[in-house]
Amino acid sequence: MRSNTFGNFFTLTTFGESHGSCIGGIIDGCPSQKEIDIKLIQSDLDRRRPGQSKIVTQRNETDQVEILSGIFQGKTTGTPIGFIINNSDSKSKDYNHLKESFRPSHADYVYEKKYGNRDYRGGGRSSARETACRVVAGSIAKQILGNIQINAFVSSVGSISVNKPYTQFDFKKIEKNNVRCPDMDVAKKMEKLILETKREGDTIGGIVTCVIKNVPVGIGEPVFKKLHSELGSAMLSINAVKGFEYGSGFSGTKMKGSEHNDLINPNGSTKTNNSGGIQGGISNGMDIFFNVAFKPVATIMKKQKSISSDGKKTIVKGRGRHDPCVVPRAVPIVEAMAALVTLDFLLINNTRK
Amino acid sequence: MRSNTFGNFFTLTTFGESHGSCIGGIIDGCPSQKEIDIKLIQSDLDRRRPGQSKIVTQRNETDQVEILSGIFQGKTTGTPIGFIINNSDSKSKDYNHLKESFRPSHADYVYEKKYGNRDYRGGGRSSARETACRVVAGSIAKQILGNIQINAFVSSVGSISVNKPYTQFDFKKIEKNNVRCPDMDVAKKMEKLILETKREGDTIGGIVTCVIKNVPVGIGEPVFKKLHSELGSAMLSINAVKGFEYGSGFSGTKMKGSEHNDLINPNGSTKTNNSGGIQGGISNGMDIFFNVAFKPVATIMKKQKSISSDGKKTIVKGRGRHDPCVVPRAVPIVEAMAALVTLDFLLINNTRK
Amino acid sequence: MRSNTFGNFFTLTTFGESHGSCIGGIIDGCPSQKEIDIKLIQSDLDRRRPGQSKIVTQRNETDQVEILSGIFQGKTTGTPIGFIINNSDSKSKDYNHLKESFRPSHADYVYEKKYGNRDYRGGGRSSARETACRVVAGSIAKQILGNIQINAFVSSVGSISVNKPYTQFDFKKIEKNNVRCPDMDVAKKMEKLILETKREGDTIGGIVTCVIKNVPVGIGEPVFKKLHSELGSAMLSINAVKGFEYGSGFSGTKMKGSEHNDLINPNGSTKTNNSGGIQGGISNGMDIFFNVAFKPVATIMKKQKSISSDGKKTIVKGRGRHDPCVVPRAVPIVEAMAALVTLDFLLINNTRK
Amino acid sequence: MRSNTFGNFFTLTTFGESHGSCIGGIIDGCPSQKEIDIKLIQSDLDRRRPGQSKIVTQRNETDQVEILSGIFQGKTTGTPIGFIINNSDSKSKDYNHLKESFRPSHADYVYEKKYGNRDYRGGGRSSARETACRVVAGSIAKQILGNIQINAFVSSVGSISVNKPYTQFDFKKIEKNNVRCPDMDVAKKMEKLILETKREGDTIGGIVTCVIKNVPVGIGEPVFKKLHSELGSAMLSINAVKGFEYGSGFSGTKMKGSEHNDLINPNGSTKTNNSGGIQGGISNGMDIFFNVAFKPVATIMKKQKSISSDGKKTIVKGRGRHDPCVVPRAVPIVEAMAALVTLDFLLINNTRK
Repeated sequence: MRSNTFGNFFTLTTFGESHGSCIGGIIDGCPSQKEIDIKLIQSDLDRRRPGQSKIVTQRNETDQVEILSGIFQGKTTGTPIGFIINNSDSKSKDYNHLKESFRPSHADYVYEKKYGNRDYRGGGRSSARETACRVVAGSIAKQILGNIQINAFVSSVGSISVNKPYTQFDFKKIEKNNVRCPDMDVAKKMEKLILETKREGDTIGGIVTCVIKNVPVGIGEPVFKKLHSELGSAMLSINAVKGFEYGSGFSGTKMKGSEHNDLINPNGSTKTNNSGGIQGGISNGMDIFFNVAFKPVATIMKKQKSISSDGKKTIVKGRGRHDPCVVPRAVPIVEAMAALVTLDFLLINNTRK
Repeated sequence: MRSNTFGNFFTLTTFGESHGSCIGGIIDGCPSQKEIDIKLIQSDLDRRRPGQSKIVTQRNETDQVEILSGIFQGKTTGTPIGFIINNSDSKSKDYNHLKESFRPSHADYVYEKKYGNRDYRGGGRSSARETACRVVAGSIAKQILGNIQINAFVSSVGSISVNKPYTQFDFKKIEKNNVRCPDMDVAKKMEKLILETKREGDTIGGIVTCVIKNVPVGIGEPVFKKLHSELGSAMLSINAVKGFEYGSGFSGTKMKGSEHNDLINPNGSTKTNNSGGIQGGISNGMDIFFNVAFKPVATIMKKQKSISSDGKKTIVKGRGRHDPCVVPRAVPIVEAMAALVTLDFLLINNTRK
Repeated sequence: MRSNTFGNFFTLTTFGESHGSCIGGIIDGCPSQKEIDIKLIQSDLDRRRPGQSKIVTQRNETDQVEILSGIFQGKTTGTPIGFIINNSDSKSKDYNHLKESFRPSHADYVYEKKYGNRDYRGGGRSSARETACRVVAGSIAKQILGNIQINAFVSSVGSISVNKPYTQFDFKKIEKNNVRCPDMDVAKKMEKLILETKREGDTIGGIVTCVIKNVPVGIGEPVFKKLHSELGSAMLSINAVKGFEYGSGFSGTKMKGSEHNDLINPNGSTKTNNSGGIQGGISNGMDIFFNVAFKPVATIMKKQKSISSDGKKTIVKGRGRHDPCVVPRAVPIVEAMAALVTLDFLLINNTRK
Repeated sequence: MRSNTFGNFFTLTTFGESHGSCIGGIIDGCPSQKEIDIKLIQSDLDRRRPGQSKIVTQRNETDQVEILSGIFQGKTTGTPIGFIINNSDSKSKDYNHLKESFRPSHADYVYEKKYGNRDYRGGGRSSARETACRVVAGSIAKQILGNIQINAFVSSVGSISVNKPYTQFDFKKIEKNNVRCPDMDVAKKMEKLILETKREGDTIGGIVTCVIKNVPVGIGEPVFKKLHSELGSAMLSINAVKGFEYGSGFSGTKMKGSEHNDLINPNGSTKTNNSGGIQGGISNGMDIFFNVAFKPVATIMKKQKSISSDGKKTIVKGRGRHDPCVVPRAVPIVEAMAALVTLDFLLINNTRK
């Protein structure tokens, strides 16, 4: 039960708490002789890092990755890739007031009960800081995936949503605004909502949509390791995620079979893509796309009723620097997890012959 | 990469095609000395079996389970539990017309491409018949879980939904109607819609809601084996599932943190339960609940454009006996997968001390 | 922790007790479109089965395998292969006298303590009967391995050993005598010793040597899944095995580096093969060979002091039909486990590129 | 296929090459709230480290472990334990002459063929330097194991062996001589042989014996994860190991059942212990003991014929500082791997109830 390991063949194992000396990981099962550009990893980390814009937490971590093994002269060697990211700006004292209290809708209470101890400094292991390691591994996976393109973007913040299918967007615009929404007008409204929410000391949820293009037919392993089961598991393992749907998703439940079925063209492609590129758990060559639901960040700058470690009533209030909305920074994390799943299944498919 | 195995510790491995001689499985990691009543397994199988009511497929399979090992004198022995279910009513000839054609939104095309062959007789391995094995294992898990109660029900069919929270339902009513919806009035409307849809030769989707009560605090393994990641993966591995959400789910994305946060009572329970009983991937002692989205069944009794194995245009039309709506029969499958995950994590938690 | 599953990718999961209705298994991860001849499986089972000659147990089990799924029209489909072998000749009453006693050097006592129960009828799950399932899976693996040849033979019984290296034997002679020793003269002496031992109501140990030819360079996964670690684990999982050595083995500990090192020829082969075809856990293209040590069978036809379930002193004496020496029947089991490991690693190596 | 991960529940994943900046690992599945003394880890590392005495390699690495996470205020937290050991004294230039040559009986050739590249600087990933990480994890496991005692010692070097059973030795003497042999007279002879061999520029093999005391009855998982299968796999994964035997081992093959069987005392203990504390793969409460065979180190200070990367004949000769005999430094590694297996199985046994 390697609960800190993700993947079957191309695997990532991570360690580290938000306020320890560093976090890091080991990538195992990486094919050899693949060219890896460390700068591209760093650029993905920069998309996730705190302090990148006015709508995210103002903590200032540079999140610089240090590769310790497994890449030699710019190429993977086939041996495990060890890496660390130092925790540069960990203001533990921001959390001292929480030492004795359980924050509502955080993992404080359950960690205490499960492990008999708890790292109160910013969530310890339950902090989303751990996802920086996923971005490192995902970035390496993306480089190996070559022409398989993975693009995630913010499709809703609170009640503000894009109102076009992803096929009508130019993905190059995603990085042109702070929210990471390819519709520049909607992005503006989203940014406004986030800033308002921040001003109120509150937080807001949102949805990230992800599209994977150019996946060959045949990826995914029935029956329990369907491609979408693994994608779902991957996304649900990201902090604050509450739901996952692919293709027609929840709205597909309202459709009739005659509407929902994707008719097959002579070349094997389909006229519609309600299947989201996956049939019976196996990729069919069409775009794979899915939505990931993020709840509002639990740390708010308002007073909330709670209890202390000894079960007495208390009041907690967030201090320090927190995200008013997590989805802009979640975009590279969703992409990273999608890349890990896709590469893992591509490699596994090599054993099927 | 055991893609036909589910679970980490309490595991189910299945085999079998819909039109072979039988299907079956092996349960490994079952604790010893647990009393198992075979009649309860059969009664869960009867809830899943075809031909049980007028709103499901009229195939008539008795789905009788035969336990081959691992249970001795009514108790588990700690050794693997092997079992089979014979395929009694497999009218393969109903499928002969599909030998050369790919059915839209089925797994025909991708299996052919992935494996270089395909069992055209009713979907072969991709058929939902495989889920009968999950019900067997899930029923055994439920018996071992004791007072942890797992109840699933149909909460929507097409656009018809229940309009109360699950806490207002009497779960005893679930089995009082063919649809398995605890709101008898809504159930009637759902049944009517299903029968209309059947008459049109069409199919319709729906949502199954599942509630797990009495799970102790501390179940679930951060960071990649969060309780909801595994539940999500389990549900998404069921045929026709397109989405999973727990607690506030997708609607939680529209909420503010101040609304969404579950304030903690002095006894550790929470005032609200937007968290769906899980915080940071670990159970917090509140009810665990989630929704599972099912697409409309792909086999319809209408003509559809498609292609044949050699890429030529053709017309396919379902024959034989199929479900107009899959959710009534999906209820015991959802419960079974929920039971497998819950027991697996309960056992795993024993290693954490 | 799937303790009844062997392998990483090409996996075998088994179930069944020696005196239940049947034993069986599921092979997962089998590549598709491979031709399988069921008769060859049966012929390997016949080499393992009881009653095949006067020097093995006189129980008479035909051990007929029934394939339930995964092979269609003589070819693998890529879906799991389920199979069963019925227990035809299980004289449970031969064991009634052991219901209350623990047999020395059997698993009776430890099963009782571990599981709180025990199947006293012939060892239940701890019986070597389970290895018939390994022979089925191993035979399928051998057929897929093609020109990779795996030959095991008996190299010693008690103190009688072959005194030539395996390279001087004609492997076709292995099946020409009851002992399965390629040296016909030594085989006669071994057979005589076994019959004498049987007459005394006693049993005797022995060694099986196995040679794998034509394995390509590069199979095996450092650092914890070295080819020889997995071979060792595979062999040690066979009932009655007490030791494993490959290449120079224990005798290599007495050598100097200058004698032991295998000098490399210009074509990559080596002048000597003390490495046993494996360097750093990876195949080097030379023959892989190893020895497997089997203890004498614990069931003897002599009185032995022991204790009953309630801890009182008692006398036990074997009844029924048992092997005086296990190695002749162990030969196909060793081959089977070697085939499982080799195919597993060959498939895994496909993911390394 | 996590080939750089050892264990099922209590797992160690390692990374790092002998001549990179550092090596390290992640321990996952560690129970929480266990007291860990870092000084004890360091003391085990010191027993493995180069330069500790005149009979081992004169490389001078301090091998100082740095714990990065998972231990807080002297106790495990239940989260992954990340750690690194810096490579302080890596004289890569000692290996420059080997850049183009394959050393006999090293992993050079097979790594090149498998991965298409090779780290020629001291073996890279195939170097025994990796085992320092195992000592760290093993030392932590030993501390958690409490009164389960694990003692390994050198029982033979070349043809010089101890000639008493382990029960007659005082284990406190193991660390009283450079060889780590509890028989002080035999130790002297061994040391003499090692020094002679070193003077010749040659190397010599040997055997390490390991004894595990106080393991409760019931540890080990039939059928494929027998306690001795996992111990065997663990030991065979250590560099230079060629064989493994437990209890009576290879010599047991020469015994009759009536001699070999361990008669059971009224308290469940046995009069003899040919079983080596394990029956049917499960611990029976007696001492567990086994032997591990190490070949002579492949790097010798003599000229040897070999080939270069382009297949041309060449001469190689070891330079730098190497061990004339590996067993004295292998003792803590054997103990570490034994501890990992034992703790892993103890934790797993908690799920069986």
